[in-house]
Amino acid sequence: MTDLAPLSTPSGESTTPAAPVEHMKWWGWGVPGVAFHHEDKPEFAPFVKNAVGLDLHAAQPLEQPDFGALDVPASIAPDALREALARAVGEGNVRDDDLDRVVHTYGKSLRDLVRVRAGDLPRVPDLVVYPADEDGVQRVVDAAVAADAVLIPFGGGSNIAGSLQPDTAETRPIVSVDLGRLDRVLDIDEAAGLARIQAGALGPAIEAQLNPRGWTIGHFPDSFTHSTLGGWVATRSSGMQSDKYGDIADITRGLRVARPGGMLEVRAVPSASTGPSVREMVLGSEGRLGVITEATVQVHRIPAKRVIHAYFFPNWKAGSAAMQAIAASDVHPSVTRVSDARETGFSLATSKERRGFSALAQKGLFTVLRKRGWDLDQLCLSFIGYEGEPSTVAEQRKAVERIVKAHGGIGVGTGPGVLYDQKKFDTPYLRDFLLDRGAGGDVSETAAPWSRIDGLHDGVIAAAEDAYRRIGRKGWIMCHLSHSYHSGACLYFTFAFVFGDDPIAEYDTVKSAVQQAFIDLGGVPSHHHGIGVEHAQWLPDAISGQGVAVIEGLFAATDPGRHLNPAKITR
Amino acid sequence: MTDLAPLSTPSGESTTPAAPVEHMKWWGWGVPGVAFHHEDKPEFAPFVKNAVGLDLHAAQPLEQPDFGALDVPASIAPDALREALARAVGEGNVRDDDLDRVVHTYGKSLRDLVRVRAGDLPRVPDLVVYPADEDGVQRVVDAAVAADAVLIPFGGGSNIAGSLQPDTAETRPIVSVDLGRLDRVLDIDEAAGLARIQAGALGPAIEAQLNPRGWTIGHFPDSFTHSTLGGWVATRSSGMQSDKYGDIADITRGLRVARPGGMLEVRAVPSASTGPSVREMVLGSEGRLGVITEATVQVHRIPAKRVIHAYFFPNWKAGSAAMQAIAASDVHPSVTRVSDARETGFSLATSKERRGFSALAQKGLFTVLRKRGWDLDQLCLSFIGYEGEPSTVAEQRKAVERIVKAHGGIGVGTGPGVLYDQKKFDTPYLRDFLLDRGAGGDVSETAAPWSRIDGLHDGVIAAAEDAYRRIGRKGWIMCHLSHSYHSGACLYFTFAFVFGDDPIAEYDTVKSAVQQAFIDLGGVPSHHHGIGVEHAQWLPDAISGQGVAVIEGLFAATDPGRHLNPAKITR
Repeated sequence: MTDLAPLSTPSGESTTPAAPVEHMKWWGWGVPGVAFHHEDKPEFAPFVKNAVGLDLHAAQPLEQPDFGALDVPASIAPDALREALARAVGEGNVRDDDLDRVVHTYGKSLRDLVRVRAGDLPRVPDLVVYPADEDGVQRVVDAAVAADAVLIPFGGGSNIAGSLQPDTAETRPIVSVDLGRLDRVLDIDEAAGLARIQAGALGPAIEAQLNPRGWTIGHFPDSFTHSTLGGWVATRSSGMQSDKYGDIADITRGLRVARPGGMLEVRAVPSASTGPSVREMVLGSEGRLGVITEATVQVHRIPAKRVIHAYFFPNWKAGSAAMQAIAASDVHPSVTRVSDARETGFSLATSKERRGFSALAQKGLFTVLRKRGWDLDQLCLSFIGYEGEPSTVAEQRKAVERIVKAHGGIGVGTGPGVLYDQKKFDTPYLRDFLLDRGAGGDVSETAAPWSRIDGLHDGVIAAAEDAYRRIGRKGWIMCHLSHSYHSGACLYFTFAFVFGDDPIAEYDTVKSAVQQAFIDLGGVPSHHHGIGVEHAQWLPDAISGQGVAVIEGLFAATDPGRHLNPAKITR
Repeated sequence: MTDLAPLSTPSGESTTPAAPVEHMKWWGWGVPGVAFHHEDKPEFAPFVKNAVGLDLHAAQPLEQPDFGALDVPASIAPDALREALARAVGEGNVRDDDLDRVVHTYGKSLRDLVRVRAGDLPRVPDLVVYPADEDGVQRVVDAAVAADAVLIPFGGGSNIAGSLQPDTAETRPIVSVDLGRLDRVLDIDEAAGLARIQAGALGPAIEAQLNPRGWTIGHFPDSFTHSTLGGWVATRSSGMQSDKYGDIADITRGLRVARPGGMLEVRAVPSASTGPSVREMVLGSEGRLGVITEATVQVHRIPAKRVIHAYFFPNWKAGSAAMQAIAASDVHPSVTRVSDARETGFSLATSKERRGFSALAQKGLFTVLRKRGWDLDQLCLSFIGYEGEPSTVAEQRKAVERIVKAHGGIGVGTGPGVLYDQKKFDTPYLRDFLLDRGAGGDVSETAAPWSRIDGLHDGVIAAAEDAYRRIGRKGWIMCHLSHSYHSGACLYFTFAFVFGDDPIAEYDTVKSAVQQAFIDLGGVPSHHHGIGVEHAQWLPDAISGQGVAVIEGLFAATDPGRHLNPAKITR
């Protein structure tokens, strides 16, 4: 968090319930008292002015949202349910105060933040429960189903696909099951490189328990600081070092899920041929098959050496081709990432004076590149990560840099990589900064075969620009390629614009244009954020109507009473 | 097939139907006219005598089974169904002759072979259809479901889990859908390393279409010569080079499945977060979700260099520890395999005079090892495969051989590896050789965490030996470790004994003891053969009763009429 500073006036709201579970701000990302600032980033304000037309020197930030001004609908939980849940988890761990209920209503998508700040709360959970352990979760599931209530599992609350929001048409009581107290690494099988970890453990808590024993899970999504193992599994998350450690679907070997009929247990083995994979049904199930209580995951010895190098490419095509060539080679870096020219501009603009890129610029590197004939408006920044024994790291770097050079790129050292590594979890704070100034941004990601990557990149940007024209706003969109696989990669887009009269409708136009372009150009609705409600309309494009029918059949057969987070992924 | 010779008197049976699809022998493995022989393997007969008490010099092989002696139940297909299927695929592609129906009744497990040789045919498919293409498959599905018939997809017929056998209680007409005519590579996306391949293509047909264009699928299961892409997907197959290329679940990116409601299509992308994975539900579905017509699979450029080196370890523990150390290292061989002392003995005994191991022995290697203090009864043979650029192969080999040496192993060159590579698809022929002489053998495989591997190895052997004692037969069991993963590996057991009075009951005792030991000692019922009916009783141990209920729910919801290969995996 090196790039963030405490606010001078911390929020007066405390979101800590009786149970010792800390939550993010009810109105934004991260912990109270920390926010993005740009005073030490001289190029940031001009960049924002140019990108979306917002003058940061003139814009007065909004007052911090006032929780007291919200009109929170009363809980409809009947006393019998409340009592049954109190028997399940203890009196103090059943909460119905408004703050707790609002904290558990939404995730952190742009739509979520706009709605919660505006007090748009048509339906909130009626009760929030904090079970202490797996048995407690099972008792909650049993009690809620017996009372014909609806269960919505809650991890870190970082979801941006709408997976957490109550169905507004739901007339039965809704119980949010907060897994925050299930935060322990239960066991490390050192001989196998497997760890049993409770589902509610946040990223930092997992590493804090693994690292002292010499292990890491190697899973570092952007949301790492505020997302949980259970949430990663439930949404098929992917972390920044996935090229080496795999997506969470690869990392997760065993699972335990509290279901209405009892515990579902998948034995942790490296691979199995035991019919349609129940493990891969729970992965991505977003609460619809039950409440994940525990996973047995692959863990790795902390590598002797870990380093991220930065490279510049003269343009996007050169950069994406280099990433593919690396994926096709015998080399196995931990991170392969290249930003397009727009995102490269953004990175340069968020760099501090006399640090990172500014230092590079001062060294005259850009003058040299210009003299070599590079169009600096097309410059693309890439990060490649290496991990392992020092000799392996050296060999891998040598092999990668041959490929980089063959694609016209040049190495710019570890300085920017160090900055990237320190700043990688900070981006979501920037969104609150923009929201405070009347602008909104969000992200959309897809995956596609290598043969589609360049067309997809250009086509999505064109689709977003067309959407901006339609809503009459000056907008921004930028992209990076990350998570390389043999046959393709993930493209990750970030977009932002200053709101007009109807933020949600404007957002819908842009977001829909981006998602539809994913489909039209060979991608899928999501690479690692999930379906929820935000992406559900594009699910048939990825897996066909018959595929959706198969998932609907699965949910209908295993949850005929629709108690398990209904209306997510499919109706 | 270097190690096999044509029989002097080829079978008089032709299994070729009007449609140009060739099948294996109705009574055994492989094509008519090819069989195992041991005349040039002087150590084989003494080995067999010692292992199971069978005197090959005295044993008179049985007569080749006489198809005419079988009592094949008449087809119960009504004319209306026959006519509807004829409209779907053409008159000549609907078959009801006894030979075709018997060929499609069983796979090639020991139980299957014993039953078919004995004419134990309580239920056989009533019709066999040979659709020419995907549309034909869809028309077959539609026609069969409309007529309330049952569909059993058939690829190469190599299954050993009972996935092909008709439910003996089935009173409706049963249609075997032979995919043999869907044998083409439809398209190669060279930019992405993806190929669209029809489900009925056999291993050699796939490579024959890919290789001339410079590509390989890299999937080489033991059954390669007689198994199909669709069958690999339907059973979650794994090939010998899986350490490099992945299991079929990793290789398969896109899928097309003919279902009663129409085509299910999973878009081919490298990774996706689109709810519970429909791709991973079709994988391992054994026909219960529909008929797989096509898969889009990862293909790789044929490596510049490919070599298999052999190593000896002083004992099993040293060998398995070395395999784990390789898996934990930064090195990525294509094959990691180590045989236990028993399987090593078998390999040495099946080696030809003056070739491979015999040559090694003649060179005095064993004398040297004995002098070094090795107990040659504990000797374990290992194969490690390397693929890639010559420089990478050299680096990998160097790194692996450091690990081998650290575990007390020594390299014995490429000679045995060449033999292994040539003989790797021949083992199933040996089973017919034994059956012809009143002995039976089969295989069982599992996967488990590294922490369980040695205990599992020893425990399964003890369980089999106890089973042999119980049935009063002198029996043999041997094992190799293959398919290494970060957290564990596959153990592959082969067992054999001379039949007593009740071959099937005796087989059941041994097979069940092996499978139960898998479960008791931390493994799963199957690593890559599937569940079918043979392994169904142990499915709850791997995924719990709730997991089985989830799969049952999936099948019940998506095939309420039970038309799709019912009673496989679950009831």
